[in-house]
Amino acid sequence: MSASISPLAPKSYPEMPEIAGARIGVAEAGIKYKGRKDLLVMVFDEGTAVAGVFTRSRCPSAPVEFCRRNLSGGKARILVVNSGNANAFTGRKGREATSLTAEAAARAAGAEPDTVFLASTGVIGEPLEAGRFTHLLGELAAGAEAGRWEEAARAIMTTDTYPKFVTASARLGDCTVTINGIAKGAGMIAPDMATMLSFVATDAPIAAPVLQDILAKATAKTFNAVTVDSDTSTSDTLMLFATGKAAERGAPWITDAKDSRLSPFKRALGKLLKTLALQVVRDGEGARKQVEITVTGAKSARSAKRVALSIANSPLVKTAVAGEDANWGRIVMAVGKAGEPADRDLLSIWFGDIRVAFEGERDPGYSEEQASDYMRRDEISIRVDLGLGRGSATVWTCDLTKEYVAINGDYRS
Amino acid sequence: MSASISPLAPKSYPEMPEIAGARIGVAEAGIKYKGRKDLLVMVFDEGTAVAGVFTRSRCPSAPVEFCRRNLSGGKARILVVNSGNANAFTGRKGREATSLTAEAAARAAGAEPDTVFLASTGVIGEPLEAGRFTHLLGELAAGAEAGRWEEAARAIMTTDTYPKFVTASARLGDCTVTINGIAKGAGMIAPDMATMLSFVATDAPIAAPVLQDILAKATAKTFNAVTVDSDTSTSDTLMLFATGKAAERGAPWITDAKDSRLSPFKRALGKLLKTLALQVVRDGEGARKQVEITVTGAKSARSAKRVALSIANSPLVKTAVAGEDANWGRIVMAVGKAGEPADRDLLSIWFGDIRVAFEGERDPGYSEEQASDYMRRDEISIRVDLGLGRGSATVWTCDLTKEYVAINGDYRS
Repeated sequence: MSASISPLAPKSYPEMPEIAGARIGVAEAGIKYKGRKDLLVMVFDEGTAVAGVFTRSRCPSAPVEFCRRNLSGGKARILVVNSGNANAFTGRKGREATSLTAEAAARAAGAEPDTVFLASTGVIGEPLEAGRFTHLLGELAAGAEAGRWEEAARAIMTTDTYPKFVTASARLGDCTVTINGIAKGAGMIAPDMATMLSFVATDAPIAAPVLQDILAKATAKTFNAVTVDSDTSTSDTLMLFATGKAAERGAPWITDAKDSRLSPFKRALGKLLKTLALQVVRDGEGARKQVEITVTGAKSARSAKRVALSIANSPLVKTAVAGEDANWGRIVMAVGKAGEPADRDLLSIWFGDIRVAFEGERDPGYSEEQASDYMRRDEISIRVDLGLGRGSATVWTCDLTKEYVAINGDYRS
Repeated sequence: MSASISPLAPKSYPEMPEIAGARIGVAEAGIKYKGRKDLLVMVFDEGTAVAGVFTRSRCPSAPVEFCRRNLSGGKARILVVNSGNANAFTGRKGREATSLTAEAAARAAGAEPDTVFLASTGVIGEPLEAGRFTHLLGELAAGAEAGRWEEAARAIMTTDTYPKFVTASARLGDCTVTINGIAKGAGMIAPDMATMLSFVATDAPIAAPVLQDILAKATAKTFNAVTVDSDTSTSDTLMLFATGKAAERGAPWITDAKDSRLSPFKRALGKLLKTLALQVVRDGEGARKQVEITVTGAKSARSAKRVALSIANSPLVKTAVAGEDANWGRIVMAVGKAGEPADRDLLSIWFGDIRVAFEGERDPGYSEEQASDYMRRDEISIRVDLGLGRGSATVWTCDLTKEYVAINGDYRS
């Protein structure tokens, strides 16, 4: 783990309310880290629906393959997450570890095996000794409590420098429902995937297929629009659990994704996922600045997102931001290499409100001093207008600093 | 420019022979750098054929657009290269600068305007004041000499820490012909392009269409198989000039790319381009290690190259190499994110001769100590077998160090 907390850490954290029907237990299993919690169990009441989005890696971890299989049932009773070892690229041993964990978890929750979900994060390629923690699951599940969300967020951290958790509420019919979410980063963060690890729970009564539909849509503009280093983990997992307990207080059961009563919930979920995604970016390994990149005027939204990601993933752009250098020439380079339609002589570029380039040339009113001044901020906004069409997209990233190299060159050794 | 010379710099340099029909002049024009040569002129005798490969950026520099237009004529009389300013994203002013330079160059060489070629390298987005050096071209061309290849290599450097030049010879019919080449790096180096800047000249009598054919083919496995940071320059240019002077010594005129007498020349050119490409990689900004990545067992050669580049461009792989960490889990990650066919449980991975992973698991004989020992070398070789088919590819890159970030965070400021 990194020694010092990111300067972009939240200034304050919310009080996390309880989610009726969801209980949390954490423990110190000593999987890799010493002197800290590295095991999380979430137990859900019967009737809990589940949705999930996972990495698009062609070499996913054993837990990701396990979750994909169980997701089709749409029901969840227990989630087990360990940090310190990703159980990825562990072959037959990896499948044995997920089987052992799942059996112990099902026993602990008194539930069917196909209602168990697992996630692992940490080093890749080393066998996970499930025996180190399977004996703890019974006690953890029995002692789980509803109000331990911050502890849950801390137990899943790896190189994160701060815990990531957030809460939201929304009207559903005549009732207010609650949504809680936790996440962990902090390297191997790039779209083309679900996300790192993030677990969200709500008491809203929403059927599993509807839950899956709204989660997938909300992911595209949140977790799949952030990138730290363009590297996609084998283990990225985002899961959403709906206990349905708010039905006891009069909330309506939602079984149709087009149900208009769902709109406030969708908005609240989208905002919550965006907050978590940005907390991940702001804790990108070595990050000192948050960078928002908006591309407008593209031929399509898809094209805009590809150009935006080409900028966000360019090492030369990211090091320039780290050096507080308004080097918009590198933005042009990144637009050019994206392979998407672009006409150099129609390009305009802004840093914040400062237009630095207009119609393919340096802006006549460009002031190096003004632009450099802007670059000293913690939050940098870059906008590129391609001048070709109406497609637009926004993505978020962080700068690339010497600390990123230090953290990732020394992670295992 | 960087303060210290890369530890991977060549231990020795070749004596550069003359290329009959090609003469070189260099000067200090003060475009950006002080106290060093930043202007190169190559003058070619009448009858010189030319070929070129350029960046695939959608936002190419003004000189790249200029060269593409003149290339169709197939004839070259003069090449002008400046360092310090790339004349890229300079709009109308950029085209004015190339026009002014081209007119002055044509006058200087007493040649037609469509036999002029231009290249610029350095900062993007700042207008190039051609007036700073156009008045020098007449004298430079008049005083150009055949034996100044090392000076030429030095005049085109930007953040390069050492000059890049190499020579080769080949049989052509009953005659020996010579090939000289120079290049410059050192950031924004990635395939999907021709290359940074590289200029190669030979006295072999080869027709322009044949020259273009063999240059394009040789590029795929040399300059287009290296990457420093995945960033593609707006200015990448590789040109090959053939003066044909060896015909006076009895070399045959080659007008057909399939002419079997051309085989030794093709091999020599390929080797020369690979040497230059590796010199560029070994001088990648902040580079401390050269990394060769070979992917075998892919569904196709194209698929193998995409997987190899995914590994070569992964910040997490590159920082692990910098940290001398045999972190093969990150290789798996990079295979997984490439989006190409891969089966986790068929993967095998080697560092040098050490097999670290076999059929999707850590190799039973894996020794952390042995692998760590290997990682201390200057030249690291990584091989991945996908176990799916017969496609293979090799690419080269360097490690990602704190110095890369330092160089690129401070380049302009």
